Amino acid sequence: MSDNDGPLSDLHILDLSSFVAGPSCTLTLGQLGADVLRIDPVGGAPDAGRHPLGGDGSSLYWAGLNKQKRCTTLDLASEDGRDTVRRLLGAPGPGHGIVVTNAVGRGWLSYESLRSVRDDLIMVRLEGRSDGTTAVDYTVNCETGLPELTGPSAWQGPVNSVLPSWDLLAGLQAATSLLAAVRRRERSGGGALLQLSLTDVAASTMAHLGYVADAAANGTRRQRDGNSIYGSYGQDFPLGDGSRIMLVALTSRHWRNLLAVTGCEQTAARLEAAAGASLADEGVRYRLRSDVTRMLSPWFSTRGLDEVAGKLDAAGLPWGVYRTANDMATSPHGLVARSEIFTEVEHPGVGRYPVPGAAVRAPWRVPLRPRPEPAHAAVVAEEWVARGAAPAEQGVA
Amino acid sequence: MSDNDGPLSDLHILDLSSFVAGPSCTLTLGQLGADVLRIDPVGGAPDAGRHPLGGDGSSLYWAGLNKQKRCTTLDLASEDGRDTVRRLLGAPGPGHGIVVTNAVGRGWLSYESLRSVRDDLIMVRLEGRSDGTTAVDYTVNCETGLPELTGPSAWQGPVNSVLPSWDLLAGLQAATSLLAAVRRRERSGGGALLQLSLTDVAASTMAHLGYVADAAANGTRRQRDGNSIYGSYGQDFPLGDGSRIMLVALTSRHWRNLLAVTGCEQTAARLEAAAGASLADEGVRYRLRSDVTRMLSPWFSTRGLDEVAGKLDAAGLPWGVYRTANDMATSPHGLVARSEIFTEVEHPGVGRYPVPGAAVRAPWRVPLRPRPEPAHAAVVAEEWVARGAAPAEQGVA
Repeated sequence: MSDNDGPLSDLHILDLSSFVAGPSCTLTLGQLGADVLRIDPVGGAPDAGRHPLGGDGSSLYWAGLNKQKRCTTLDLASEDGRDTVRRLLGAPGPGHGIVVTNAVGRGWLSYESLRSVRDDLIMVRLEGRSDGTTAVDYTVNCETGLPELTGPSAWQGPVNSVLPSWDLLAGLQAATSLLAAVRRRERSGGGALLQLSLTDVAASTMAHLGYVADAAANGTRRQRDGNSIYGSYGQDFPLGDGSRIMLVALTSRHWRNLLAVTGCEQTAARLEAAAGASLADEGVRYRLRSDVTRMLSPWFSTRGLDEVAGKLDAAGLPWGVYRTANDMATSPHGLVARSEIFTEVEHPGVGRYPVPGAAVRAPWRVPLRPRPEPAHAAVVAEEWVARGAAPAEQGVA
Repeated sequence: MSDNDGPLSDLHILDLSSFVAGPSCTLTLGQLGADVLRIDPVGGAPDAGRHPLGGDGSSLYWAGLNKQKRCTTLDLASEDGRDTVRRLLGAPGPGHGIVVTNAVGRGWLSYESLRSVRDDLIMVRLEGRSDGTTAVDYTVNCETGLPELTGPSAWQGPVNSVLPSWDLLAGLQAATSLLAAVRRRERSGGGALLQLSLTDVAASTMAHLGYVADAAANGTRRQRDGNSIYGSYGQDFPLGDGSRIMLVALTSRHWRNLLAVTGCEQTAARLEAAAGASLADEGVRYRLRSDVTRMLSPWFSTRGLDEVAGKLDAAGLPWGVYRTANDMATSPHGLVARSEIFTEVEHPGVGRYPVPGAAVRAPWRVPLRPRPEPAHAAVVAEEWVARGAAPAEQGVA
């Protein structure tokens, strides 16, 4: 294991998952150097053709979530294919015997059954609901209450999130838990079944952020409130040149600097006198947010982006411009162009586009594998088992 | 280290972070057993009073993100306070020398400076933008393009996400990277500065999901589209009893079962004949989503939740009910009541509310610490250093 391979290069992880949570778990571990082998059934997993598609009809979504992995196809309905999975999983060495799956209820893929090939198996099982029934991100999100709290207050009806946050959070919780289980196995020798459901990830996250306590202990019924930030001051402002920004004053320093930049100190003092409360307190800023927005709006609506950007940056205020996803991906001002972790790659049949390495900047270097690497099942099986042995000898201190 | 403490119980992590990303990183590690000590400046960190508040005026948000930790206060403006941080961080043993912070640009808290107490220091530094300038979740989210893609197509203007997804994802990416760095240190002896920005987390996640490729290689300009799911079939339906559900048909099996349940096979066949395409293909379902919704709506609008629930469950379809956050937290049908990971706890001055343990169900047991545990700085310092020694001896295999 060297820093040119990444800190997880002696881990060999079998990926029998599809859609977002499982594949993003193994993608994250792959970007830290883990050797990930994704196994698909004949004809492809259910996510094989997920939109958006490239010009050649291939799934850009699938390619994005399975880069940094080798991918092979096995007839998982046959005993032969299943034997191969068992052989891959049963390979000796401390970095083998790890599988991530979202298959629920398939006997041969159960923890109990697969343990027969390696007693110290580590299996991550991603579930929809913790009772084992089916659910996807969007059918869990509707139960969190967030769609009733999203969007303009004038709107009737729920507004779904476009981002599958619970899937993505479950994938990363799974990655963290998997590394904890590997650590435990290296010390005690014990394997682990790790079960993680989208419903538990969602409910616990809502609790971490105070939603559960606020509802259960206070009985608060929150209302949707457009683009303002609950409990502090954050608001979007249209500028004079047609652009729009999001601005946040989270700390009292932010607030002081915002007043100075916009020249609103005296108006703010009058507002405070009338309310009998200090706007240095973020709870007060939240309560008086309509007045604050009315006070600040003229400054923004009479200026263009360049001037506003220069002044807000100089004042150290957190703010951002509303952009389209196209600008995010392709504009020189967009998040992708301003990031150091992307590499522009030509994808035959699809075209050139930027591909990210790991988001974390670290002293190690993991080579970018910009697309899923197709691998022949039989060849992979030989090599996989052999790969296990070498790092094991040199790896464990 | 035993299974009654969790797999990370020999790790001692100093938390000098505030708001969401850093605290949720260390919370996750704490829920896997790590010994986390949060250090706050005199008067509290900037997140100390964040809403929602409990009846006694304390922050439920702060309590939620800092449970499972010990918390102490130091005068971080004084050399004395800084010396204590250096002493805590420099404690000997393989599980010490780990710090998580979101402080940028403070000299004494820099990696270069703190390395002087332990050459193999592991520091996670959470940043707003990767160029070191300030940003928070909401000022990054506006740059992803998602607010332009959220909400009803008739709506003008951006719709922010209520959930700080980038913060939460950054926190879990940080937790995963931290464990990878600990693994590397145990083998090679080397420390690490891990830098992770909200902007890189957001941009790379958008790339993983195909947004970057679709924009850069295809030039697609996506449009907002209400509660439907891009590239597949998912839609919300009002029921006859006033409730509303979200339904998804992701796979061809889902689609077949949905048609059978709703008795729409013949209408669907006519739709397919007219379009010259098969609705078994999720891309076709997406393209014809308005027709599909029109076809299915009468079945839903003439039935109540009990009947719909029974039939969709029997057909193995992913679906969920839109609930308020209050119902999520307090109804017997809500996510919290149906989860196994919550414990009802009395919080003096605040009231009773359910608190989650780790979302992952695993063979180990980490005792729940339902609220931040205040600890006296001097006492903690003694104990902290002592705690480091014991697990080190028995820990490493």
